[in-house]
Amino acid sequence: MKIVIAPDSFKGSLASSEVAQHVARAFKDVHPELTVIQKPMADGGEGTIDALAAATDHKRQFIRLTGPLGDPIESSYLILGDDTVVIEAASVLGLTLVPSDQRNPEETTSTGLGEAIVNALDHGYRKFMIALGGSSTNDGGLGILQALGLTVQDNNGKEVGSFGKDLYQIDSVNKSTLDPRLKDCTFKIACDVSNPLTGSNGASHVYGPQKGASKEQVKKLDEALDKWGRLLDKSMMDTPGAGAAGGLGFSFLTLEGDLESGAHLVSEAIKLEEAIKDADLLITGEGKSDEQTLHGKAPAYVADLGADYGVPTILLSGSIEGDRDALRGKFMSSFSIVPSIISLDDCMKYASDYLYDTSVEVARLWGHILERSEG
Amino acid sequence: MKIVIAPDSFKGSLASSEVAQHVARAFKDVHPELTVIQKPMADGGEGTIDALAAATDHKRQFIRLTGPLGDPIESSYLILGDDTVVIEAASVLGLTLVPSDQRNPEETTSTGLGEAIVNALDHGYRKFMIALGGSSTNDGGLGILQALGLTVQDNNGKEVGSFGKDLYQIDSVNKSTLDPRLKDCTFKIACDVSNPLTGSNGASHVYGPQKGASKEQVKKLDEALDKWGRLLDKSMMDTPGAGAAGGLGFSFLTLEGDLESGAHLVSEAIKLEEAIKDADLLITGEGKSDEQTLHGKAPAYVADLGADYGVPTILLSGSIEGDRDALRGKFMSSFSIVPSIISLDDCMKYASDYLYDTSVEVARLWGHILERSEG
Repeated sequence: MKIVIAPDSFKGSLASSEVAQHVARAFKDVHPELTVIQKPMADGGEGTIDALAAATDHKRQFIRLTGPLGDPIESSYLILGDDTVVIEAASVLGLTLVPSDQRNPEETTSTGLGEAIVNALDHGYRKFMIALGGSSTNDGGLGILQALGLTVQDNNGKEVGSFGKDLYQIDSVNKSTLDPRLKDCTFKIACDVSNPLTGSNGASHVYGPQKGASKEQVKKLDEALDKWGRLLDKSMMDTPGAGAAGGLGFSFLTLEGDLESGAHLVSEAIKLEEAIKDADLLITGEGKSDEQTLHGKAPAYVADLGADYGVPTILLSGSIEGDRDALRGKFMSSFSIVPSIISLDDCMKYASDYLYDTSVEVARLWGHILERSEG
Repeated sequence: MKIVIAPDSFKGSLASSEVAQHVARAFKDVHPELTVIQKPMADGGEGTIDALAAATDHKRQFIRLTGPLGDPIESSYLILGDDTVVIEAASVLGLTLVPSDQRNPEETTSTGLGEAIVNALDHGYRKFMIALGGSSTNDGGLGILQALGLTVQDNNGKEVGSFGKDLYQIDSVNKSTLDPRLKDCTFKIACDVSNPLTGSNGASHVYGPQKGASKEQVKKLDEALDKWGRLLDKSMMDTPGAGAAGGLGFSFLTLEGDLESGAHLVSEAIKLEEAIKDADLLITGEGKSDEQTLHGKAPAYVADLGADYGVPTILLSGSIEGDRDALRGKFMSSFSIVPSIISLDDCMKYASDYLYDTSVEVARLWGHILERSEG
C-alpha cells in the first residue's frame, strides 16, 4: 500500500513540508508497513520555494538584491536538479516584505527579481521558473526589464527610475540593449490569475488597492501601464495573466515566457504525477477550504491529478467553510482538524497536534477497513 | 452491509434520537443500499426517556405530580413493550426543573418520583426502571418512601414532611405501612456513581454543593442522612451507589432494587446487543468527549458492546478534548464535527448540519474503501 501526501501550506502556521511531515508521521505510526511519500505542494505563491526545496534535490543560491522599497535585502533562489532556477516573487518583492504603513505601489519596484535573473545568468543558468504570487509591485515589470538591460527613457532622453511612479515619465523603450543571453532562456511563469495588463479588470484596478494604491493612484497607474504596454508589446497586453503581480506577467510575456498554473508547475518540478500513478490514497491539505479551493488551488490540482489515475484524495483542512457539496465533487472526504471550540490563535498554535491527531483518526479508519476487506 | 447508529445526546443541542437521525440520513444519502439501524442511547441521565421512546415500542403515561419544590408539575413515564415502567428522575425532580436561584437541597423533595411509582402500581405495573441522573434532591429518598407508604415520625410521634430539611426531624420509621404491592415489584436502577450514602464521599458532600447546599448544610444533611440510613437499613448505607441522586440510590436499595450501569440498562431496553451482533460498523456520538467518556458514558458502553462482536465503533463528537490516545483505546476513530473556528453558540445552533456533514465525509471514506476492496 502506498500513500502520497501532497498538501499545500497551512498559511500562518505550517509550511507545506511540515504539513506533509505530520500527516506522514501519523500514517506511519498507525501503519508502519505503509509506503508513505511526501510531496509538499504549493500553488506558485508564497511558500513555493520552500515546498520545492522540501520535495526535490536542489541547491540554494543566497543573494543580496534590491528589495521592493529600494533598500538592499537578503534573498535566495533555488536551483533544481535539472538546472531550473526557481525564483519566488513573494520572497524578492513580496507584499509581506513591505510594512503595512508603507504600502504604496508607486514606491515599490521589481528590480530585485531582475537582479536575481542576472545573477543566475552569470552562473550559467538559462531555465527559469518564476512564481508570481504575493507581489507588492505594480510597475509592469519595469524594474525587472531595466535590470535585464532594457533602456527606458523620458521625453528628455533621460533614463527613468524603476519604481511604480517612474512609469509616469516613460516616453520610449529600446529593447536592443536587453541582455543577449535572454535569447537562450526559457521562462515558465507560475500564474493563477487571468487578468489583462490594464483596464477595469487589469492589474491596477484589481490588485492595486490591496497593495496600498488610492483610487487616484489606481487610475494613474492604469494609464501609465497602458502606455508602457503599448511601447513594449501591444499584442501581449490582453493575454490572460498579463496583469498578474502588478504586470510582472506582462513583462515575462515579452520575454517569451509561458504562463502556467502554479500548482501545475510545482507538481511537475516535484514529479508529483509519477508518485501518484501507483498510489492507493492521496492526502492533501490547506489552512482554509471553501469554494475558492476549487479554483487553481494546490489541493484541487492534486485531487484532479489523482482522479486521472483513479486515486482518491482526502483533504485535511484547518477550516472548512461554505458549501461542502462543492468540495465533495473534488475530494473523497474532507476533514477539519479543529477538535473543539477553540480560538484562531490556539488553532494556529496547535495546528501540528490537531493535524497529526486528525490524520491518525483517518489512518485508523482507512487501515481498519482495508484489513477487514483483506482478512 | 449494516450500520448501527447508537449515539448519546449532544447535550444542549440535539437529543440522541436527533443525532441518530442526522447520522442515518448522511449514511443513507451516501449509500442508499446500506442497512442503517438507529438505536439512540442514553446513560440513565437526562434524555433517557426520550432515547427509549425513540428506540422502542412504548406507551407514555402523562401524570400530574409533586415537583421538586413541592409545586405540582406535569410529567410522564414510559411503559415499554414488556410492561417495564421507565421513570427518569431528571424529568420528575431534576435540577433543571429548579431555577438556579432557588437551588437548595433542604427545600427539594423526591415525593413526585414516589407518586409516579404509585400511579404505575395503580395501573397494574410491577417492573420498574428508574434513571437516577440529574436530581435536585438530597432527601435520601424520604419523599419517595413516604409516597409509597413509609411512616416517618419525629420524636413527638408526628409525621414529618418530605423535604431535605425534614430529615433533621426524623426520629423513627415504620416499614409495615409500606405499600404491600411493592413486594411484587422489581426495580432496576440506572446509576453510574459508586458513592456511599454518607461520609466525605457520600451524597451530601460530593453532590450537595452543585445542588446549592452551603458548607453548613452539607454537614447537617450528611448527619441527617446518616441517622435516616441507620433507621432504615444500616447494611445498605455503604453499598456503592447508595449515595446516588442525593440518596435515592439508598432508598431503592431498601426496596431491593438492583443498581446497574445506566447505559447497560438502556441498551438492554432498546435491544442494542441484538442489533450489533451482525453489524459491520457502529457509530456513536456525544456532545463532548474526553477521558470521562470512558467512564460509564454511553459511547464507551456502545464501543465495548461492539468490541464483543468484533464490530468497530466510530465516535462523532461535538468537541474532543484531552488525551486522544485514551479514546483510541476504545474507538476505531473519533471525529469532531467542528468544521472551523466557530463560537459555542454557533456550534450548538448548527450542530445538526455539522453532524450531518461530518457523517457524510466518514460515510464516503468508509464506502469508498469498501467498494475498492470489493471491486
